[in-house]
Amino acid sequence: MTTPLRVGIAGLGTVGGGTLKILSEHTAMLKARTGREIVITALSARTKNKTRSTDISGLRWFDNPVAIASDAQVDVVVELIGGAEGVARELVETALKNGKSVVTANKALIAHHGIALAAMAEQSGALLAFEAAVAGGIPIIKALRDGLAANNFKRVVGILNGTCNYILTSMWESKRSFDDVLKEAQEKGYAEAEPSFDVDGIDTAHKLAILTSLAFGCAPSIGDVYIEGIRRVTLRDMEFAAELGYSIKLLGITSQTPTGVEQRVHPCMVRMDSPLGTVPGVFNAILAEGDSVGTVLFEGRGAGAGPTASSVVADIMDIARGVAYKPFTLPVSQLNPLPFSTMEHLKSSYYLRLRVIDKPGVLSEVTGIFKQEQISLRSFLQHSHKPGEPVNVVVTTHDTQESSMLRAVDAIAKLATVSETPYMIRIETL
Amino acid sequence: MTTPLRVGIAGLGTVGGGTLKILSEHTAMLKARTGREIVITALSARTKNKTRSTDISGLRWFDNPVAIASDAQVDVVVELIGGAEGVARELVETALKNGKSVVTANKALIAHHGIALAAMAEQSGALLAFEAAVAGGIPIIKALRDGLAANNFKRVVGILNGTCNYILTSMWESKRSFDDVLKEAQEKGYAEAEPSFDVDGIDTAHKLAILTSLAFGCAPSIGDVYIEGIRRVTLRDMEFAAELGYSIKLLGITSQTPTGVEQRVHPCMVRMDSPLGTVPGVFNAILAEGDSVGTVLFEGRGAGAGPTASSVVADIMDIARGVAYKPFTLPVSQLNPLPFSTMEHLKSSYYLRLRVIDKPGVLSEVTGIFKQEQISLRSFLQHSHKPGEPVNVVVTTHDTQESSMLRAVDAIAKLATVSETPYMIRIETL
Repeated sequence: MTTPLRVGIAGLGTVGGGTLKILSEHTAMLKARTGREIVITALSARTKNKTRSTDISGLRWFDNPVAIASDAQVDVVVELIGGAEGVARELVETALKNGKSVVTANKALIAHHGIALAAMAEQSGALLAFEAAVAGGIPIIKALRDGLAANNFKRVVGILNGTCNYILTSMWESKRSFDDVLKEAQEKGYAEAEPSFDVDGIDTAHKLAILTSLAFGCAPSIGDVYIEGIRRVTLRDMEFAAELGYSIKLLGITSQTPTGVEQRVHPCMVRMDSPLGTVPGVFNAILAEGDSVGTVLFEGRGAGAGPTASSVVADIMDIARGVAYKPFTLPVSQLNPLPFSTMEHLKSSYYLRLRVIDKPGVLSEVTGIFKQEQISLRSFLQHSHKPGEPVNVVVTTHDTQESSMLRAVDAIAKLATVSETPYMIRIETL
Repeated sequence: MTTPLRVGIAGLGTVGGGTLKILSEHTAMLKARTGREIVITALSARTKNKTRSTDISGLRWFDNPVAIASDAQVDVVVELIGGAEGVARELVETALKNGKSVVTANKALIAHHGIALAAMAEQSGALLAFEAAVAGGIPIIKALRDGLAANNFKRVVGILNGTCNYILTSMWESKRSFDDVLKEAQEKGYAEAEPSFDVDGIDTAHKLAILTSLAFGCAPSIGDVYIEGIRRVTLRDMEFAAELGYSIKLLGITSQTPTGVEQRVHPCMVRMDSPLGTVPGVFNAILAEGDSVGTVLFEGRGAGAGPTASSVVADIMDIARGVAYKPFTLPVSQLNPLPFSTMEHLKSSYYLRLRVIDKPGVLSEVTGIFKQEQISLRSFLQHSHKPGEPVNVVVTTHDTQESSMLRAVDAIAKLATVSETPYMIRIETL
């Protein structure tokens, strides 16, 4: 007879509540599947007395979450507080130092301090598990680490932030502006009052840094992620994109290139009929490209109580079963010190929207600049308009080096006939 | 210093060759990821002297594959021979009895004898691993067993046979008949000379029985799978489907219903814009629906050297890492003796194509039969045609019990004005 696995949960927000629910309602199922009873022996959250869907009255309560990390009746600490620093970090560090395994959904913590934490876990023989930190219910961490472990990965591409995907999908479907849809998303609770973390791409970058680490066996390096959010995407760009057969998605992309590992988060045009082109609303999706497996797509809910708790509890079950693995696939001492590439080395094709005053010679000036940078154009769109009024002109390029493209955009922006800052969106082939 | 994991491979066809390639070319990567060297210490195949992409001259050769199972220099037996009986079964049974772990891509063996084999593995402390048996490179076995383990599954739906999906996709894209496309697929090597195993749905049924077992914790029961292949699907049906917003796919579906676990393999109409509606060519895709996670989609290559070997080697890596799990999620003695439902209990909506001789009163006869069975019609299609000539009439129904539908189809088939056996396709909502 094995002893029960004793779990302490810190943080009872959306994900904490979902975790509590699964552990309470599926006790017998989890025991059958792991061979071990999983019991909650400690809880902590900001507010104790609050109506919750699961009754917690019989459970041990801690006003100080960090105390759970030293509690003798806890084997596994589930950290669902959030934030790269402060209480969450202190809790996780204390737990690992005390030899208690940690399950967390905290992408910021793992992206910033994951390697230091993994080293502590190695030291004390504890497990550090963070399936829920990336893409909610999609088991992408386990897939990269276990299911696809025989592959040398070439590229991993993901729609990793449900808020951004919801905003972009809604803009297109309801033909509204970014500001309009963001406001609605905030009212519906899909976006935070301070939306910067999501819409400026930071959340996606955290998740991407973690995926990079798993795919390429290096330390997560959030500082080496190029980050550009979705605030500048307009409905007009979406209409042009559709005309060209594309949709616009915020992607996180990590790939092996001749100049190093390239990590980037930015709006992308992807073919509408490609696997990521039609991922709807709050869904997340990830394409992993391996040398043996080819391309594998994973799609599902990237947030919410049920999906994220599904991943949290799967990690707890791993611990109950006694599964051992390296959190970042390799022992910390053996992680690859891979060089990271920078954006000027990127080779991509581009979409560029200009607003020009329609005078003779304008297009000749623009195309002259492209010629000077040896950028070859793939398509050119301009719709009929009233003579003399500003008009949107769209060009797309063949594969070009980003540094050349940026010089061209810079020169074009300075033309007297160009009336707004041009907007450039990279086109990603999937 | 850990000792190397010694692998014996039986069967060097497509998948065996792919496995050999990964193990030979990624030796250092696999060692870094598992912490243990993986070495090939035994090989067996039908022909020894044959040009192969990997040099096998230095490796120990066995004319009798079963001898590998008793070889003192082998820790893991990789069975890539195929077939539910004969040498493959003998090899796997001997290996497990000898305490050697087994990795196999053999769906027929696992669907028919998986539980007996799992019991042997439990007895001897060996591992039985079969990620490659379902959906090639997609790590769906691990996802159901580990990544989504916190879920009570409601339904798992898959496109599990690349040959069928290739044939159906090609029929539609090139507007050709089943026979034409099958012939081409055979010439290209996508379909076997004896295609029955694929096109009659048997291969899909094997894979579905395995997925059922993992999702619901019961023994695989191939005898309880309703099986109907794709031979009767016509281009005409695809055209009507498209008109209604559907594509036609061969699906394997397993779900919990009030009358038991329902397992069925048959052509389905699925909405074109649903996740399985546009899965192209030889790809496989699986939708898993869990109570917490909601719906998760997995898509990738379901066959071929690289993808299938990716899964074979991932299983070998699990063994190298010392991962322990129950092959069917639960210990054999604790598997659920779930009742299986039968097709007459199915509730579905239906597509029915009739060829009728256009005489006054025909449609009234047909609709009268539906009324008698209390089947409510959702749509009705009939295209203009020359008067007096036979015409295709298509009806779709609202949700109906299969037994009623079959009685109606039977009665309709007997009408003097119906000139061909009506063709019924179930419509699946995803």
